[in-house]
Amino acid sequence: MPKLPSPFITPNFLLLSPQAERLYHDHAKQQPIIDYHSHLPPEPVARNHGWDNLTRLWLAGDHYKWRAMRANGIAERFITGDATDAEKFQAWARTVPATLRNPLYHWTHLELQNPFGVTQLLNEDSAAAIWSTCQAQLGPTGFTARSLLAHFKVEVVCTTDDPIDSLEHHLALRRDPTATVQMRPTWRPDRGLMVDDPAGFNQWLDRLATVSSTTIRTLEDYLAATAIRHRYFHAAGCRLSDHGLDIMYAEDCSGAQAAAVFSQVRAGTRPEDADSARFKSFMLDHWARLDHAAGWVQQFHLGPLRNNSRRLMDLVGADAGVDSMDDQTYARPLSRFLDCLDRDGQLAKTILYNLNPRDNEMVATMAGNFQDGSTPGKIQYGAAWWFLDQKDGIERQLDTLSNQGLLSRFVGMLTDSRSFLSYSRHDYFRRILCNRLGADMRDGLLPDDDELIGRLVEAVCYGNAKAYFSFEQTTVAGSRGRGVAESDSIR
Amino acid sequence: MPKLPSPFITPNFLLLSPQAERLYHDHAKQQPIIDYHSHLPPEPVARNHGWDNLTRLWLAGDHYKWRAMRANGIAERFITGDATDAEKFQAWARTVPATLRNPLYHWTHLELQNPFGVTQLLNEDSAAAIWSTCQAQLGPTGFTARSLLAHFKVEVVCTTDDPIDSLEHHLALRRDPTATVQMRPTWRPDRGLMVDDPAGFNQWLDRLATVSSTTIRTLEDYLAATAIRHRYFHAAGCRLSDHGLDIMYAEDCSGAQAAAVFSQVRAGTRPEDADSARFKSFMLDHWARLDHAAGWVQQFHLGPLRNNSRRLMDLVGADAGVDSMDDQTYARPLSRFLDCLDRDGQLAKTILYNLNPRDNEMVATMAGNFQDGSTPGKIQYGAAWWFLDQKDGIERQLDTLSNQGLLSRFVGMLTDSRSFLSYSRHDYFRRILCNRLGADMRDGLLPDDDELIGRLVEAVCYGNAKAYFSFEQTTVAGSRGRGVAESDSIR
Amino acid sequence: MPKLPSPFITPNFLLLSPQAERLYHDHAKQQPIIDYHSHLPPEPVARNHGWDNLTRLWLAGDHYKWRAMRANGIAERFITGDATDAEKFQAWARTVPATLRNPLYHWTHLELQNPFGVTQLLNEDSAAAIWSTCQAQLGPTGFTARSLLAHFKVEVVCTTDDPIDSLEHHLALRRDPTATVQMRPTWRPDRGLMVDDPAGFNQWLDRLATVSSTTIRTLEDYLAATAIRHRYFHAAGCRLSDHGLDIMYAEDCSGAQAAAVFSQVRAGTRPEDADSARFKSFMLDHWARLDHAAGWVQQFHLGPLRNNSRRLMDLVGADAGVDSMDDQTYARPLSRFLDCLDRDGQLAKTILYNLNPRDNEMVATMAGNFQDGSTPGKIQYGAAWWFLDQKDGIERQLDTLSNQGLLSRFVGMLTDSRSFLSYSRHDYFRRILCNRLGADMRDGLLPDDDELIGRLVEAVCYGNAKAYFSFEQTTVAGSRGRGVAESDSIR
Repeated sequence: MPKLPSPFITPNFLLLSPQAERLYHDHAKQQPIIDYHSHLPPEPVARNHGWDNLTRLWLAGDHYKWRAMRANGIAERFITGDATDAEKFQAWARTVPATLRNPLYHWTHLELQNPFGVTQLLNEDSAAAIWSTCQAQLGPTGFTARSLLAHFKVEVVCTTDDPIDSLEHHLALRRDPTATVQMRPTWRPDRGLMVDDPAGFNQWLDRLATVSSTTIRTLEDYLAATAIRHRYFHAAGCRLSDHGLDIMYAEDCSGAQAAAVFSQVRAGTRPEDADSARFKSFMLDHWARLDHAAGWVQQFHLGPLRNNSRRLMDLVGADAGVDSMDDQTYARPLSRFLDCLDRDGQLAKTILYNLNPRDNEMVATMAGNFQDGSTPGKIQYGAAWWFLDQKDGIERQLDTLSNQGLLSRFVGMLTDSRSFLSYSRHDYFRRILCNRLGADMRDGLLPDDDELIGRLVEAVCYGNAKAYFSFEQTTVAGSRGRGVAESDSIR
Repeated sequence: MPKLPSPFITPNFLLLSPQAERLYHDHAKQQPIIDYHSHLPPEPVARNHGWDNLTRLWLAGDHYKWRAMRANGIAERFITGDATDAEKFQAWARTVPATLRNPLYHWTHLELQNPFGVTQLLNEDSAAAIWSTCQAQLGPTGFTARSLLAHFKVEVVCTTDDPIDSLEHHLALRRDPTATVQMRPTWRPDRGLMVDDPAGFNQWLDRLATVSSTTIRTLEDYLAATAIRHRYFHAAGCRLSDHGLDIMYAEDCSGAQAAAVFSQVRAGTRPEDADSARFKSFMLDHWARLDHAAGWVQQFHLGPLRNNSRRLMDLVGADAGVDSMDDQTYARPLSRFLDCLDRDGQLAKTILYNLNPRDNEMVATMAGNFQDGSTPGKIQYGAAWWFLDQKDGIERQLDTLSNQGLLSRFVGMLTDSRSFLSYSRHDYFRRILCNRLGADMRDGLLPDDDELIGRLVEAVCYGNAKAYFSFEQTTVAGSRGRGVAESDSIR
Repeated sequence: MPKLPSPFITPNFLLLSPQAERLYHDHAKQQPIIDYHSHLPPEPVARNHGWDNLTRLWLAGDHYKWRAMRANGIAERFITGDATDAEKFQAWARTVPATLRNPLYHWTHLELQNPFGVTQLLNEDSAAAIWSTCQAQLGPTGFTARSLLAHFKVEVVCTTDDPIDSLEHHLALRRDPTATVQMRPTWRPDRGLMVDDPAGFNQWLDRLATVSSTTIRTLEDYLAATAIRHRYFHAAGCRLSDHGLDIMYAEDCSGAQAAAVFSQVRAGTRPEDADSARFKSFMLDHWARLDHAAGWVQQFHLGPLRNNSRRLMDLVGADAGVDSMDDQTYARPLSRFLDCLDRDGQLAKTILYNLNPRDNEMVATMAGNFQDGSTPGKIQYGAAWWFLDQKDGIERQLDTLSNQGLLSRFVGMLTDSRSFLSYSRHDYFRRILCNRLGADMRDGLLPDDDELIGRLVEAVCYGNAKAYFSFEQTTVAGSRGRGVAESDSIR
């Protein structure tokens, strides 16, 4: 094991100026977390699950680690295959030193230190000791989903949910008087656009019909069913929608055209590409208006190219770690989409995320076109996401937003994660933010005024999200009391 | 008001090494300004206007500030509406602290300090005092357009003008023996390409016919009329053209094809997109040859996506702050356009500006293809522009140019501004340039030789522009004597 | 001549932290060089040529310098024309001070210092003295191709070769018992895709038929001939292929479709663009399978826009310095191309290089999709190349790779050069690498552990390339003994 003169993750990790240290320690680190976008599974929170071991908590489902292991020459058996949990952990430990300079190296040691208190570097030699240390804090008497969320001061967590989801775990948690975290669903109707796969789409429609207690034959039926579910989500606490798209779609499409495409697909026929694009445009515009009417925030995650390796897709399934960045252009449809809503006074609060960083400036300046003075930071240039969730990516997002918009109005970081350990990324973000601002203060690019810049830090870490999202309109079970008005409408 | 231990804009603002300080103070700051591209209105210079108050001078027409105010949740009434000037200033002052890290925060305090001597930070609390300080230097006895230009040592300012413009203010100034600044028009025939709007295009053609004392029925008539105006502009001192384009157009288009499209549009019919692109290609190539024959410099500003919010366009009009960056590809037409001229020996000195910074390297390397040894820096990779006119954008332009071309031959900064206070941006640019070079000297990336690097600084700040533009061929009225030869041809 | 307080290229040039200094001096500088991609001419190595003077060695064929000279206003006569070698050197010397901040300024002084020991800055005044100093080390008793390669500790150099090339110089060197460097050909069949130029393509096919001792009438004949040459290259030591492409091609194309396009072109007719793209897709896929079967590494250099100035092309020929960056999108065909091979278990080790840095993240994440655990770093995100071969470009490649993949598995730098002096670029790269890593150690972003990071440095500088390429499978003539098995099959 390499000699290590001092612990790697020190209290001032990433804080390279006295100003940065003060901003972080005095203004950032104690803020609660509003995690307004995650992919956490709701069931462990509702049932307050724990985990058998670190592999289950930390490696299962983590396609970042999977990619790194494959790149390091680890066989698939030790990644997603039938090796034991201990073997998989050993394979990961062997890979960690190969990830130097990759964000995984930082995340890994941040997550081992907090919550587990591990300060050693993980590698093949230290693996056994670290496994033991963590094991003592897992299992029946160890961390649970809720105790981890409480540990990280998570106030609100928004999951990502299909309109056909029962939301049973969300509802159970709302009824649980011991719950202290708000867990809210997010309306993510991606499968409602999948007309290019008629069989899958129709299957989904059938399930949608069932959960909506209706039948779906026509476009009108479809819109009615999604409206029912939209209200159901709202009643369950949902205040955000989200859309995962390669590009934005904003083709002209009349209701009659959309209805024709829908009928064709409902009959099992794949539409032409142009018709598919028109249909997607119609639905996105339609749902955006529902979001506006409901006072929700709409999110658009733009730019991935998914499922590149069919071999690994067949072997492992979706979200296997074989997605990457696309390079299509989409400034024009993005403009048209927002303009049509804006012109009609139907543009909800909106967060725009781009995956390929070459689109940073385009998207950030696009956001600026549709600020309307109604809400500070109404159109948000979204946080660094997925492949960009590292120091460079976060800094570029902060810099782009600073240059093209108002950093002071930014609603800040999210985890976008499937793992309950990822809350360290909020800490990571806060350190990077404070470091960036502290360097500017040190260099005279910002006034060297802790109070002025400290207020900005607090706003970006917590206050802006608190003000921007409509989470206060509802109450949750537990310490904050029962949310009667909403819950009543849920069947 | 936040405590401020020291003034924000210090003499060494942005200068983070001793080398940078020396370069700036010994070589940069005293250079005169050749502002070869601006959108200043010529009338205030000709008539030597002053301003009633800071809102009139500083906020009217400044779409950067408007965007920031909208993003900060300020209602449109206080931005472009019927609020009083004092109310608008107060709304801006309230927004300034929200712009921390945005270039507006730097520009604002640079412009308040120079020329007004204000060293306080602007915010809601300091607004009244700052308004008073500035007010004492405005009004009937205060700054005028010319005294501001003289204050900033502006030697030449090039405005941006429609071919149908009378240039009366330029001509008046040339005849004014008290004028000390050269004000030159720039030929910007964007409206001469607007065949996609036949009504607007025909209206413009009618006015072109009037000012050219001719009639325009055919393409031939059109070319003849623009040639008349091109000569008229030349006689009025014009030595640059400029084109604001989304992408470059370089489709094959014969004279007969162009004539057919022209006739169609003249008859009121909108052409197909492909025909429109062909027509634009033809005209741009045609005008480029006029520019070459006249010894002008041609400029291309590529890449905006304009007028995104029709709501705000309808409310406020064009240049409302609802333009942003496009993401189209244009390397191939840009290459074809330049190649056709180069092959025929008709390629004028050219400056290429891109708006989306993802195009930096493409455009900078494209410039390198058409250097022909005739003039140092013949094809210029243009200065950081519009959304890029901030520290990061300027540094990226300087770095791209340095890596892909010759920084030492760069003609330097311009304001591209509608405001007479924007000359601080030359100071901003010079500080950033000196800081970048000083850091390289300190770090051993450049020889630590003040004389060697100081010469480069002087060249980029002033000397290169002086040598590159043909401003010496003409004389101006006033201290430099009457420019008889040119003026004679002006009716 | 400017005063120079200290030599410009110091032992710690580019090394800005104590950690960087240690990494470079203790781990990087002594590593041998495996130059797995170059454009060096093989003849000078086989015949062990020297050079008459510095112009012949240094300026002839160097389109980087040519571009800089043209941008500096130097007439073509002194660049590629009939001026004397001394005049050309003087013109270059005059240009060098104009290249401050361009990589040429660094390369120039690195190359003068090593191997010539020149520490003065090159400019008009110092030119004569520097010419003399170098002249004493050139000519009949001076450096030769092999002594330069030995001087720079080049262990392997891979040239770039057309399938019709006789490889006579490679074979001669392999038979030469005094040779100490491995020189290997690289299979670069770009001309085998040039169906858009039927005359040139057919001429090339005729030569291919001759060197393959076969006739080529049908696609089948063509595939057979390239297979013969592929084996011939393998026998001559080739272990890499390379493809220079504007974008990747991955259209669906059956054998019958490809055969039809081939017959059409063989008969002298230019195919439609879509057919051309299909044919290219077919051939690239076909050759990729040959590479996989032979255990080769395949390289794709994507993204140039070539031959922009037809005027200079006509005057000087190809590679005249009139190539630049394209801006096409190609994520989707790149994905399809790799996926088809991956799905069939036919994906060779692959290196992906992009020219336009806006594609960095797309390409780096694409590589990650096809890592399969079989070989560490199987799909490589390739080194900064051509216009990106400078400090910023190298740093961006290192950072992109670090963030999106495994820097620790990177096979490192190559020269991609036509010049025997370019081996200083390996030194340049190593300094930049060590500086980047050292800064991270100093700042706490990496463990401050010389052994841990030193291992990474050694791997990237040498060890990874040694392990990745199959150069050990063959032996070469000379000190390492005769490679009988391979050579036998060569006619």
